[in-house]
Amino acid sequence: MSMRVYHLFSGGKDSSLAAWILSKLGYEVTLVMVTFGVLDNWKYARETAKILGFEHEVVELPRNILENAVNMCLEDGRPTRAIQYIHEMALEYIASREDVERISDGTRRDDKVPFLDIRKARSLEDRFNVAYIRPLLGLGYKTIRELVNKIFIVEERESEKIEKGDYEVELRYMLKLKGVDPLQIFPKRHVQSRVIGLKMKMMSSAGPEE
Amino acid sequence: MSMRVYHLFSGGKDSSLAAWILSKLGYEVTLVMVTFGVLDNWKYARETAKILGFEHEVVELPRNILENAVNMCLEDGRPTRAIQYIHEMALEYIASREDVERISDGTRRDDKVPFLDIRKARSLEDRFNVAYIRPLLGLGYKTIRELVNKIFIVEERESEKIEKGDYEVELRYMLKLKGVDPLQIFPKRHVQSRVIGLKMKMMSSAGPEE
Repeated sequence: MSMRVYHLFSGGKDSSLAAWILSKLGYEVTLVMVTFGVLDNWKYARETAKILGFEHEVVELPRNILENAVNMCLEDGRPTRAIQYIHEMALEYIASREDVERISDGTRRDDKVPFLDIRKARSLEDRFNVAYIRPLLGLGYKTIRELVNKIFIVEERESEKIEKGDYEVELRYMLKLKGVDPLQIFPKRHVQSRVIGLKMKMMSSAGPEE
Repeated sequence: MSMRVYHLFSGGKDSSLAAWILSKLGYEVTLVMVTFGVLDNWKYARETAKILGFEHEVVELPRNILENAVNMCLEDGRPTRAIQYIHEMALEYIASREDVERISDGTRRDDKVPFLDIRKARSLEDRFNVAYIRPLLGLGYKTIRELVNKIFIVEERESEKIEKGDYEVELRYMLKLKGVDPLQIFPKRHVQSRVIGLKMKMMSSAGPEE
């Protein structure tokens, strides 16, 4: 029985830890790096994907999703609705593929956005006939910190400076193109992380053990 | 680095699966069977604990917690508030022990009770300086079903008939002692589960792998 899960992946510590947990539970993990085709920053996520040793693929989402998100940022003066929107669209886009039975991400208990409440999570599962798995949802910051420290070598930097594979980078870039300083939309101090190495072997118990 | 977690355990499929996940993440699991000292039904949970191969201990909670819960059942005509109350008291009782740094349970995304919302979960962690881990919180019913089917042999029966180690059994018994039919308080059709065997080796990757 193959248990393939398609996991939204940015190269950060949360989505990396979630992928590691999935593999420990016996899932075959495909890391999905999302792009709108504007920048090639997904390549940073690919570097991390190679370090982790999981299968990975790039999925290009329709450009109009990014344009809608930019407009939400401009309307709201903050990025929360836009980020929530992109995340939901990305999950739906992957879930709608015929070969996909399971999707997952690295969202946490303590995340404000992106986050699907129970109604949205069930709706996603029902509309696309998939299982939606969030390995970090039941974990607080202490637990995530101790697991990350056990497994990964992490680089942490300000959002503006880190080279990372998530869609926030393209969103900031598009705002700049429109003449808007992203620092007027995004919080000024917002530390992002990227996994750059492993402290322990990843795949030692990934497969089924029957 | 020892990562010991004290896990509320009934012998059912949810708390068994949660314990299995914790061991896969490298935690050393102690299964905690709760009793009020009224019945010895915790022995059924101990049978399952032995099958799973984890350390386990019995914790006797103060009898007045059970008495309060019985009164809640009588006041409300349904058991939801009482079950929530017992669960919170059990978590706090274990969390308050000096040797305990991590507690966990098998509560799920789709559970109504017992369930700690984010405010209560954080409050529990802060007041007792513990990490509260819920491995099943980010999993829907499909994912729980496929993992349980992969790992466990499960017996499923009506609540009234199953011999199980959770505190509902003592709550039902105390209601009967007061001359109240538990079927007037608890839902009539309510299937409970108990893990009675393993399909695959449990502890193959339990320890740290450095």
